[in-house]
Amino acid sequence: MNYQLVLVRHGESVWNKANLFTGWTDVELSETGMSEASEAGRLLKENGFDFDVCYTSYLKRAIHTLNLILDEMDRAWLPVNKSWRLNERHYGALQGLNKAETAAKYGEEQVKIWRRSYDILPPALASDDERQPSKQPMYRGIDIQDLPSSESLKTTIERVVPYFENCIKPAMLEGKRVLITAHGNSLRSLVKYFDGIADDDIVDVNIPTGIPLVYEFDENFNAIKHYYLGDQKAIIAKMVATATQGQIKPELIHA
Amino acid sequence: MNYQLVLVRHGESVWNKANLFTGWTDVELSETGMSEASEAGRLLKENGFDFDVCYTSYLKRAIHTLNLILDEMDRAWLPVNKSWRLNERHYGALQGLNKAETAAKYGEEQVKIWRRSYDILPPALASDDERQPSKQPMYRGIDIQDLPSSESLKTTIERVVPYFENCIKPAMLEGKRVLITAHGNSLRSLVKYFDGIADDDIVDVNIPTGIPLVYEFDENFNAIKHYYLGDQKAIIAKMVATATQGQIKPELIHA
Repeated sequence: MNYQLVLVRHGESVWNKANLFTGWTDVELSETGMSEASEAGRLLKENGFDFDVCYTSYLKRAIHTLNLILDEMDRAWLPVNKSWRLNERHYGALQGLNKAETAAKYGEEQVKIWRRSYDILPPALASDDERQPSKQPMYRGIDIQDLPSSESLKTTIERVVPYFENCIKPAMLEGKRVLITAHGNSLRSLVKYFDGIADDDIVDVNIPTGIPLVYEFDENFNAIKHYYLGDQKAIIAKMVATATQGQIKPELIHA
Repeated sequence: MNYQLVLVRHGESVWNKANLFTGWTDVELSETGMSEASEAGRLLKENGFDFDVCYTSYLKRAIHTLNLILDEMDRAWLPVNKSWRLNERHYGALQGLNKAETAAKYGEEQVKIWRRSYDILPPALASDDERQPSKQPMYRGIDIQDLPSSESLKTTIERVVPYFENCIKPAMLEGKRVLITAHGNSLRSLVKYFDGIADDDIVDVNIPTGIPLVYEFDENFNAIKHYYLGDQKAIIAKMVATATQGQIKPELIHA
């Protein structure tokens, strides 16, 4: 192994709990989510992991997950880079809707397409919608052209992977040990890129929340191995639970 | 006013509470300290303050104060730069000693000299002391030559002010709105530098914990005004309490 990277998907948020489409909505971790984050930090420490630099999104559920991990590892002083490019997939006009209500409104089949297709965009936020990223203080430093009104997994990948290549990979090549806390779809984007997963298969890859996912790379930066830290039985149960929630076949879980 | 800067001294720590010399010991905020930090964030928000970039020390009591302020302002996504150069004054071998016990051991007069003189160093940590910064993971990225074993206010200033000049002032000159959360002596260092306070007078300047201190500068970066946010009577009472704790004359408080 020449390079190692740790990914952590943020813990449960208050909207996950309420079964709402979240996307770029900046919701807080639930109590369970906070415990998941601290547990991830404990696992990393217990397994002798340490880091030189951390990356996270602009969304507080990922930032707070990182803060809780760093506190648990006594590493609050590590440098942290925040980028909107690590944000969750933007769910457009579906954001804030209850998943069951959305199915009733648009049809189960259509919702399945939006959730599970690789490149079909959900309905965009209206240009005058207050939730437009360009209308939020959070994105005031970002070129308005770069900001989406909805994203597919494909368009999410198109902003996550260049950020990894331009900002994170160079740090790793310098020998820095990197921790990334982010979201289901921004992490899926990286996993697809590392493992060369096909467009049709990536939507079936489920990364459980709050479990450190360790990637190892050879000298040419080919991913040679990945594994989750912690009790493997519990992790599988968690992946199955996540998969079932999204009506995804458990046998397609990427582990 | 051409430039504005906000300084916040971290809230009460668990060692402040126990009346121990803290310095570079990385102790947590007390419950009171956490409330003070959140209240600072609330005040900043209520008074219409916003920021583009934040700076803090390597010590968790300052980092957590910043995190709590940013959460209160819904600004967790702001970039944060952490530097050991904003750390509290290093109190050398006095760190971890109870202030009363130190007085009994070294004499009240000697302790007063260490606490109140401008340029007399407290006894240094022994070179094999585990608490030497060079032996701690936190400072592993720092040139060992730069790391102190004890500091006077003078030597603290000698590492704080260049950091301000080289890293923070350029951001302000670019138009960035800056928030710094740090410590009694690193903030005193900045206040001395901004207001040209004499060496003999600066030790009598007391900055209350958790109260946003706003500095305004003219086009030549001369400090033209400073004030504390919040209930002015309560602030004065807090400054008097801090001053009395350190046996400093309340009339010398810098407000």
